Amino acid sequence: MDNFNFYSPTEFVFGKDRENEVGKYVKKFGGSRVLVHLGSGSAVRSGLLDKVKKSLESENIFYTELGGVKPNPRDTLVYEGIEICRRDNIDFILSVGGGSCIDSAKAIAIGACYEGDFWDFYTDKAEIRACLPVGTVLTIAAAGSEGSGASVITQENTRLKRDAGSDLMRPKFSILNPLLTCTLPAYQTACGAADIMAHVFERYFTNTPEVEITDRLCEAVLLTMIKETPRAIAEPDNYDARANIMWAGTVAHNDIIGVGRSQDWNSHAIEHELSGMYDVAHGAGLAVIMPAWMEFVMHHNVMKFAQMAVRVFGCEMNFERPELTAKEGIRAFRSFLHSIGLPVNLKELGAKEEDIPALVKNQGLGKGKTGGFVNLSSADITEIYHIAAKAEA
Amino acid sequence: MDNFNFYSPTEFVFGKDRENEVGKYVKKFGGSRVLVHLGSGSAVRSGLLDKVKKSLESENIFYTELGGVKPNPRDTLVYEGIEICRRDNIDFILSVGGGSCIDSAKAIAIGACYEGDFWDFYTDKAEIRACLPVGTVLTIAAAGSEGSGASVITQENTRLKRDAGSDLMRPKFSILNPLLTCTLPAYQTACGAADIMAHVFERYFTNTPEVEITDRLCEAVLLTMIKETPRAIAEPDNYDARANIMWAGTVAHNDIIGVGRSQDWNSHAIEHELSGMYDVAHGAGLAVIMPAWMEFVMHHNVMKFAQMAVRVFGCEMNFERPELTAKEGIRAFRSFLHSIGLPVNLKELGAKEEDIPALVKNQGLGKGKTGGFVNLSSADITEIYHIAAKAEA
Repeated sequence: MDNFNFYSPTEFVFGKDRENEVGKYVKKFGGSRVLVHLGSGSAVRSGLLDKVKKSLESENIFYTELGGVKPNPRDTLVYEGIEICRRDNIDFILSVGGGSCIDSAKAIAIGACYEGDFWDFYTDKAEIRACLPVGTVLTIAAAGSEGSGASVITQENTRLKRDAGSDLMRPKFSILNPLLTCTLPAYQTACGAADIMAHVFERYFTNTPEVEITDRLCEAVLLTMIKETPRAIAEPDNYDARANIMWAGTVAHNDIIGVGRSQDWNSHAIEHELSGMYDVAHGAGLAVIMPAWMEFVMHHNVMKFAQMAVRVFGCEMNFERPELTAKEGIRAFRSFLHSIGLPVNLKELGAKEEDIPALVKNQGLGKGKTGGFVNLSSADITEIYHIAAKAEA
Repeated sequence: MDNFNFYSPTEFVFGKDRENEVGKYVKKFGGSRVLVHLGSGSAVRSGLLDKVKKSLESENIFYTELGGVKPNPRDTLVYEGIEICRRDNIDFILSVGGGSCIDSAKAIAIGACYEGDFWDFYTDKAEIRACLPVGTVLTIAAAGSEGSGASVITQENTRLKRDAGSDLMRPKFSILNPLLTCTLPAYQTACGAADIMAHVFERYFTNTPEVEITDRLCEAVLLTMIKETPRAIAEPDNYDARANIMWAGTVAHNDIIGVGRSQDWNSHAIEHELSGMYDVAHGAGLAVIMPAWMEFVMHHNVMKFAQMAVRVFGCEMNFERPELTAKEGIRAFRSFLHSIGLPVNLKELGAKEEDIPALVKNQGLGKGKTGGFVNLSSADITEIYHIAAKAEA
């Protein structure tokens, strides 16, 4: 096991009706002038925003609103948020929405404390040294941003999708009410599930040997998702299914199951180009890319994929030919994703095979990240996209 | 799933040689005048104390020492610590030792901020409202106190063992270097493992239905302990085995795997009377009590015990007679404890069957806790002690 620091000081406030306490938690963590950051409008329609406002008002907290966060959140709205923070002397950012909304809130929170262009943090041109406190009321289990120090933003004019990270950006509190996720369409529920599972797999496939505790914790989250996701889709109002998925989503990404081991994140990087270019749901992109990545890299450590197949997907171990078990596990994963209504190839996703060279070229414009489970060249990434193009459930 | 709050703001600093950074972390969390709290002397002999002092000195931090913490830490030393805090204007308590040392440090930390008798917190006569910051350098994986808000203290003159809890007592940081645990005798390693597994089982056996995510996370920790403990005993210097056990021990008790579900804790309460009366190791007491408790309560939810048997101990499910699978799981647990060198009955523990009435009577003097998985009467507790008296591996 590698040396590590694990610091997750977010207070998670979980359960029915907890959003009515949001004012109390904003106050607890020092907020008096709040920017309420919102997504597409569902929080308005569902009455959630009214509850949040009422709770803030009951604590005599000033607030101003900024709505309009889209999936794959844009830099343009972040600039707008930063302006508002300066204009209104905002001292707390409250995200009311999903992962995109939280990521956008985090970007505003670091941007408001920085003289330069916040995009510097997403292109490794500046180091995050200060951040306004952020709180969240989560409306979808997916990104894990409610418990992480990470944020992903897309630059509107270039369509480049880049990430930044710092423990300073970890939310002070996150309110997780599974009931708020019961109104999600099945497709969004499935996309969220794929994102959660991908967060685990990015950690699971490691080159660090002898990490039984985090291996087992990763498998625990995956097994839960395999049980609960089809249930949440078949019975959208099933509170228990929603609750299990919601806590799984947080545990999957606050890093308690990923510490002390090298992580991969190449599937995320490859997918980011897809959702950046086509504006498709991140989880849907991952459903197409991740199994393709697995097929491409499995020979790097066949036994690890066999372990996944046996422990997570309940495959029989083939002791004579472990690679067949490994392949069966990947097939089972793709088949699971298909069964919950997700695309399994580029066409189903709405992406075009002829764009692969452009996707790979954008990749090259990234932070030059190498490493992970298998170090990928441009040719490797091209091959992974082609596997993804040809895949069938 | 039940509503819950989860707040674990401890910074975990994990890995080889991390104790050399202790001064930096004391400073980070506001300490300038430190009480270094120590156990029996092994930290002195191993050179650990010297490293800690050197690190504190390099940050120009004042410190004073208080050693002598014994297993089942006593109130008498806590009173001494509180006096020193007042005399030397201590603003930070640093525990260098195992769970007993941390529990004692926490008691001093709350006692120093309280006008009355600190024992009030352990008898529910006062509520914890303030606490000096506590940091730890952990030397044994067992109690989980390095990541918890709990403390257990034994009153010297009455031998009563009582607990207190508050998020305020959670350590600011905990330094976990698995190498420091390599010198532990096999018996202490085994006792620690039993304690860790018991922390999981106290959460696992719940009356809250539909808690797949925390069930699976609990099983992940148990599976890890079953794999790694025999390895750490056979090869004391095996860093990976020690590292997996150490992170498992923290995850087992910081409550991330126990939130949103009713918990039991009756085995701990029953055991506390044993280690209070005979001054035996807590983990050894748990090894005797927990399987006996399981046998007594298994009919309350046979399928949950069958789940444990199948998922944790790899038993075959008997679909016609699930209770046989349940029993086989309990047998497998006791047999595992025996295989790592722990006692399985009162006699092996050094306890006397004729003391059972006195043990049960002390129980009655507790906080009057009822509930848990099965609500136990005095007659039930008597029966559990008798099962423990008769048990064989």
